Amino acid sequence: MDKNSLSATFKLGFLGAGQLARMSGLQAFRYGIQLAVFSDREEHEPVQFMTPHSMTGSYDSADDLANFAKECDVLTLENEFIDSSILREAQEQSGTNIFPSPNTFAKIENKLIEKRTFEDAGIPVTPYEIVKTVTDLKDFGQNYGWPYVLKSSKGGYDGYGNETVRNIEEAKKAFRELGGHNNHDIVAEAFVDFTHELAVQVARNETGHVVYPCCETVQENHICVGVKSPAPVSQSIQQKAQEMALKATEAIDGKGIFAYEFFLTKEGNLLLNESAPRPHNSGHYTIEGCVTSQFENHVRAVMGLPLGSSELRTPSVAMINLLGTDERDAQVDNALEALAGSDGHLHVYGKLDSRVGRKMAHYTLLGNDMDKTYETAQKVTEKIRI
Amino acid sequence: MDKNSLSATFKLGFLGAGQLARMSGLQAFRYGIQLAVFSDREEHEPVQFMTPHSMTGSYDSADDLANFAKECDVLTLENEFIDSSILREAQEQSGTNIFPSPNTFAKIENKLIEKRTFEDAGIPVTPYEIVKTVTDLKDFGQNYGWPYVLKSSKGGYDGYGNETVRNIEEAKKAFRELGGHNNHDIVAEAFVDFTHELAVQVARNETGHVVYPCCETVQENHICVGVKSPAPVSQSIQQKAQEMALKATEAIDGKGIFAYEFFLTKEGNLLLNESAPRPHNSGHYTIEGCVTSQFENHVRAVMGLPLGSSELRTPSVAMINLLGTDERDAQVDNALEALAGSDGHLHVYGKLDSRVGRKMAHYTLLGNDMDKTYETAQKVTEKIRI
Repeated sequence: MDKNSLSATFKLGFLGAGQLARMSGLQAFRYGIQLAVFSDREEHEPVQFMTPHSMTGSYDSADDLANFAKECDVLTLENEFIDSSILREAQEQSGTNIFPSPNTFAKIENKLIEKRTFEDAGIPVTPYEIVKTVTDLKDFGQNYGWPYVLKSSKGGYDGYGNETVRNIEEAKKAFRELGGHNNHDIVAEAFVDFTHELAVQVARNETGHVVYPCCETVQENHICVGVKSPAPVSQSIQQKAQEMALKATEAIDGKGIFAYEFFLTKEGNLLLNESAPRPHNSGHYTIEGCVTSQFENHVRAVMGLPLGSSELRTPSVAMINLLGTDERDAQVDNALEALAGSDGHLHVYGKLDSRVGRKMAHYTLLGNDMDKTYETAQKVTEKIRI
Repeated sequence: MDKNSLSATFKLGFLGAGQLARMSGLQAFRYGIQLAVFSDREEHEPVQFMTPHSMTGSYDSADDLANFAKECDVLTLENEFIDSSILREAQEQSGTNIFPSPNTFAKIENKLIEKRTFEDAGIPVTPYEIVKTVTDLKDFGQNYGWPYVLKSSKGGYDGYGNETVRNIEEAKKAFRELGGHNNHDIVAEAFVDFTHELAVQVARNETGHVVYPCCETVQENHICVGVKSPAPVSQSIQQKAQEMALKATEAIDGKGIFAYEFFLTKEGNLLLNESAPRPHNSGHYTIEGCVTSQFENHVRAVMGLPLGSSELRTPSVAMINLLGTDERDAQVDNALEALAGSDGHLHVYGKLDSRVGRKMAHYTLLGNDMDKTYETAQKVTEKIRI
C-alpha cells in the first residue's frame, strides 16, 4: 500500500482471534479497511464475529499461515507464541509483511533470549539463570535466596507457566510440572522485593515512536486485576521506565505496539520483568484514557501510518479487569451501575464461555484523583457477575 | 433479554448497512454482543465487512424483514424510509422488537405527518402547505414569498428530494421532477432567513433520556460540510433548542437516538426543520467529543440499558465531513496531516466506491477555541482526496 493512502479493500490480517485482536479490529474498522482473522480453533472466538473473513489452521504450519497471509495486505499478531522461523517462512512464501517482524520475534523468542537481548541493550532485568539439573535448582536458591520463581521459557502468561518455589522440594516439583524433564528450557528468576509493578506501552514504526504514560499494574496471584495511570510513583521513576521501554523497543527494532512490565524495587531501582510484542492488558485503559489508544496505534504502526498522541485525557485513569466469576455461557450481570457511571466505560470481549478467572471484560473510569477514581471503579464493578 | 444482562449470543440487527450502522456496530461490539445486518443491496456495504451475519432482501417486504428479525434479539434502523406498517407487520410476524418502534415511525412517516406531529406538540416548525395544483404553487409563493422550497414528502435527504424555487415556472418544473404528478405528496416550505442551522441529538428509552449539546451544522448546497459543538450562539438559544428536541422526542415516544435540525431566524426564533429517528451526521463528533457517543447511546437505548453522559470532553469540538472528491475505487489520499494532528480523529466508512459528494469519511478535532479548532480541522483535511 502507498503509505499515503487508505484503501477500502486493504485487508489487515490477525493471527489470533481473542480480545486483543478484537479491540485492535475495532480501531482498524475506523480507517475503513477490512479485517481478516486466523485462529487455531474451530469454535467462534471474539473476532470471528466481527468479520466474514476468517480462517482456521495450525500456528505450527508455515503453509497454513502463508495461505492466510496471501489473502491479506499486512499481517500482525495478538500473541508471541509462534516460532519466529515459522513466521519468517510464512512471510517469504506469501510475500505479505508481518509486523512485528520475524526478526523482532527472534530477539524475544523465549524468556532466555528475551532477557539476553535486553541485558545486551543495557537494560537491567530480574536476575536469572537457566536451570537444567537439581544442582542448578539448589545453587540458584543459595545464590539468590529462597523463594524464587521458575518460568517456562516459552508460552507463559497470567501466572500460567510460572511457579514461585520456597525450597528445593517445591523447586523439583515445579521443574517437572513446567516440563523441565522434556528438554523444555526452564528459567529461574530471583524473587524481587518490589513496591510497585509498572508498565509502559510503546508504539513505533518508520515514522517515529510514541511512548505511553507509565502506569501501575495491580496484581493478585500473578494476574493483573487493575491499572492506575499514571502510576503513583515519582515523575523521575515514571520517566525512567518510559526511557527503558523505548530503549527496549529500539533494541528489538520493533514495529507495532509493545508493552513492558517493570518491578520497582524497595531501593528505587527499575528491573524489566516481561515484554509483550502486542497490545497488552496494561494498556486497555488507553481506549478512553488517552488521545490515541494502544489499539489504534498498533494498527497505525503496522500499516506504516503516523502515530497518534499518547497523552492522558484526564489526570487519573483507572482500569479494572473483569475476570470470569462463573462457569457458564458468557453473560454480564449487574453491570447497570458500571454503565450508569459518569465517565466509566465497559468493554466486553464477546467470548462465548465464562470460566472463573478468565479475562472477559474490563471497565475504565476517567477522573481527577487517582485513589478516588480507582476506588470508585472497584466499587461499581464489584457486583458484576460474568 | 434480561435488562440487567449482556449476553455474548445477543444479536443486534440493523436494517441498513451504511456508515450509521457501521459506527453503531463498532459500539455494539464493545458490549461483547453480535451484529447482524439486512440490506437491499447485494454488493458489499460498509457493515457487511463487519459481521458474518448478513442478509439481503427488500425493504418493502414484511416477510423478508420478519425472516431477518427472527434471527435477531432486537432490531434497529439506520434510515427512516421503510413504511411503518411494514415494520409493524415484521415485528408482529417475528416477535422481535423494533426500536424506534413502528408507532414512533408512524408519527414521522413523511414530512407532512412529521410536521403535524411536532406542531401538535407545540413545537414551532417552518411554515408549510401541501401543494397539489399549479394554483397551490402560486398561492404559496404569494402568501409566504419567493423563493420557497418544495420537498418530496418521503425519502429526501442531503438535498435530494428538495428544490428551492424562485418563481412559478421553477415551481412547476420542480413539482414535476419531485413526482408531484404521480400522486406523490409534495410539501411547500417557506424559505426561512436564518443565521444558523442548529442540531441536537436526544437518546431516550425507559431508563431516561440524555440530551446532547446544541451544535451548529455548517451547510453548503443543503449538504452538511461541518459541525461546531457547542454552536456559536447564546446559552439560552442552545438550551431552548435542547428543550425543543427533548419535547419532540417525547411527542413521538421515541426509544433510540434522534436528531433534530433547527433554523435560528434573524429574529432569534427557533423553527424545527427536520428530524431523524437514528444516529445523524450532526452527531458524528460525539464519538470523541462527548463522554458517550450518539452511537453508543443508540445501542444502549434500543437494548434498554441506562444511557451514558453526553457531556463534551473539551470546550470546542469541530467535525468536517469528507465528501467524495473523485469517481473511483474508494481510497483516502493525503490524510497524513489529519492522522498526525494532536487530538484529531479520522473515521473512514469502508465504502468501496467513491462518488463526488458522497459521504465517505469524517474528521473530528477537539480543542479549546472554536474558531481556531474549526479552522485547523478544515486546513488539515482540505488536501484529502477520497
